[in-house]
Amino acid sequence: MDKQEFVSKLTVKNDTKMLMLIMDGLGGAPMLGGKTALEVANTPNMDALASASDLGQTVPVIPGITPGSGPGHLGLFGYDPVKYQIGRGILEALGIGLEVSNKDVVARGNFATVRDGVVIDRRAGRPATEENAKVCELINSKISEIDGVKVQVFPGKEHRFVLKLTGDGLDDRLTDADPQRDRQPIEYAKALSVEAEKTAKIVNEFIKRVVDLLKNGERISGCLLRGFSKYPDLPQFPEVYKIKSAAIATYPMYRGLAKLVGMEVLEVPAAIGEMETVRSEIKVLKDNYDKYDFFYFHVKHTDSYGEDSNFMAKVDVIETVDKVIPEIMSLKPDVVVITGDHSTPALVGGHSWHPVPFLLYSKYSRYGLSNFFNEKECARGSLGTIEARDLMTLLLANAMRLEKYGA
Amino acid sequence: MDKQEFVSKLTVKNDTKMLMLIMDGLGGAPMLGGKTALEVANTPNMDALASASDLGQTVPVIPGITPGSGPGHLGLFGYDPVKYQIGRGILEALGIGLEVSNKDVVARGNFATVRDGVVIDRRAGRPATEENAKVCELINSKISEIDGVKVQVFPGKEHRFVLKLTGDGLDDRLTDADPQRDRQPIEYAKALSVEAEKTAKIVNEFIKRVVDLLKNGERISGCLLRGFSKYPDLPQFPEVYKIKSAAIATYPMYRGLAKLVGMEVLEVPAAIGEMETVRSEIKVLKDNYDKYDFFYFHVKHTDSYGEDSNFMAKVDVIETVDKVIPEIMSLKPDVVVITGDHSTPALVGGHSWHPVPFLLYSKYSRYGLSNFFNEKECARGSLGTIEARDLMTLLLANAMRLEKYGA
Repeated sequence: MDKQEFVSKLTVKNDTKMLMLIMDGLGGAPMLGGKTALEVANTPNMDALASASDLGQTVPVIPGITPGSGPGHLGLFGYDPVKYQIGRGILEALGIGLEVSNKDVVARGNFATVRDGVVIDRRAGRPATEENAKVCELINSKISEIDGVKVQVFPGKEHRFVLKLTGDGLDDRLTDADPQRDRQPIEYAKALSVEAEKTAKIVNEFIKRVVDLLKNGERISGCLLRGFSKYPDLPQFPEVYKIKSAAIATYPMYRGLAKLVGMEVLEVPAAIGEMETVRSEIKVLKDNYDKYDFFYFHVKHTDSYGEDSNFMAKVDVIETVDKVIPEIMSLKPDVVVITGDHSTPALVGGHSWHPVPFLLYSKYSRYGLSNFFNEKECARGSLGTIEARDLMTLLLANAMRLEKYGA
Repeated sequence: MDKQEFVSKLTVKNDTKMLMLIMDGLGGAPMLGGKTALEVANTPNMDALASASDLGQTVPVIPGITPGSGPGHLGLFGYDPVKYQIGRGILEALGIGLEVSNKDVVARGNFATVRDGVVIDRRAGRPATEENAKVCELINSKISEIDGVKVQVFPGKEHRFVLKLTGDGLDDRLTDADPQRDRQPIEYAKALSVEAEKTAKIVNEFIKRVVDLLKNGERISGCLLRGFSKYPDLPQFPEVYKIKSAAIATYPMYRGLAKLVGMEVLEVPAAIGEMETVRSEIKVLKDNYDKYDFFYFHVKHTDSYGEDSNFMAKVDVIETVDKVIPEIMSLKPDVVVITGDHSTPALVGGHSWHPVPFLLYSKYSRYGLSNFFNEKECARGSLGTIEARDLMTLLLANAMRLEKYGA
């Protein structure tokens, strides 16, 4: 059974408002005095909400699996994160805010140091992002088309860039053009299906032309390409759930993920500092509150500081978010979920497999088990340990947007 | 999705050490003062470990299903216990320590009392094991080959024996040669596929010759054969998980199960008494600690005493194991799991469907919810209620042996 298809058939429309507040990488592991960032953080507003909510914890994919942002978010949006896989090329493109259409194939690129056909350094000594941008400019000025297909490169951070091919009949079923280790010959892409042979030819011609063009480059003198991918054909959120949905997020990758599933992505005016950024997002929420049924509200830095192993900075971000909870609740949403797309414990310094605490507030909540929002309380919460993709169903249920199944 | 295949693709090697301590049939049900054996047992070492560990409980197959030792262990080793079924013939053969190759078909046999082609007593009045052994000897001396296939029988306890056929082109797709009830005519095996017709013919000829050979036997005068099975073709643990793995177990069945999944099975010198046996296993662990990444460490008698409804003896075994926990921890393993393959409550006097408590210790554990290792604490543990086969994934995750899924 595809759970999402099953749920979709039961959806009905009404005028409830739903909000999913995602603190990226929210879940932690015990560190300071045996406590997680969420436990250490002073969160009177989330705790008060917890005392009127269902609590539980989600498993993003299956127990033990550490998800990237793609599967983490797809799960929260109700999609099976194993069935729907988003290519690395697409995610990288989304991450730098690139528009991708269904006539494109994109890939994640590395600039590399190449000598006599051998890859000496797969990351070209991690060049400055500015140097990267200049090389991209040079490539775009010299290689704009191959075999009738438009070719463009876009700089990322340090050695990373995105290759975008635009044309008819492109196919992403290619092997990575990456020797995986240094001091190996340049690797070319191989077609994994007959339909992808044309694309393989173009990609390999591109690699050759780049090596030729950059042959005098000291560090940047070639490239690797990985994760060839087309725009994924995902069921669209507004149709699946019969809801008008909006995304409020500041980082390109999350805006891109929301767009992939068909949400409208609202513009968030840039702001400086954590509190100002969250306030900017809150203002967008308020200004658009009447226009949508569902809001995906994303806060990035809980994850970033977890990745940096900066425990106290993660605590600060959580406290900042806590301060705006009354503003969100003053809008009187019918259902509010607060959770993360995965755990990013400062202890691990990266995404992890740990279950993710969640709080689900509605007037139908089976509250009363707890007065705090944290990992321990959620592990023992009223909704238990569930798959992340079931959260969307619970949210719809609490919004009275699902019909009874069977007579 | 086959979870194990999915996990396998994410595995990486490193130099961590993992240990899975299985107390067979560990889980119990309330009996003495409303407590289980694990609650009554004085286990200061496991309790201390619990206070630094994740806790949870496993469902061996699906809720409500009581597993045999085969599915119980396959689940713990990360295999889908419904997809991979180990025939009763093979399990019986493993249980008596028989070597089985992929040219063999084995079956579980009963000696029976047969008169004029009718099975009078399917268990031949439960003869003494010695009498059984003598009859096996007689059969082996008179029936060594049928149609070019080598035929051997091996005595088990009371009325049970194992038939082993060795030759080319044997097939195990046969119905049981067992009338199921007393006072029914002898039942012969039927081929369930064309390829199994030769084997059916041999099996049925064997049954006829045994009846003829034993026609003057008072109680043992025929046989039944069930669970025809070949050596199962299971994905091999070292390849699936990229780990060098060793089994430390004293009972043939568990040694056999470990071998089926490709673990190396270490010799454990025989010892008398519970504590000496466990100490012998600990010595093997210490002597081989440097050579493997993963250890499966099996303790049998928690199950045996549960089966005997001997509550206090089960308590004693748990306390014995608790005493050697410091010796295990002094090796500084990176990840330790303590659990059972199923529950065997003394209250039930047999395997049961109850979830099985587990403890998962690593430096990434989300500890702090509990200071005791028992069914009640584990039911409310940080990892919730999971499928047994997900435990292996969690173990690998905590050993940092799984790559992130998706970008």
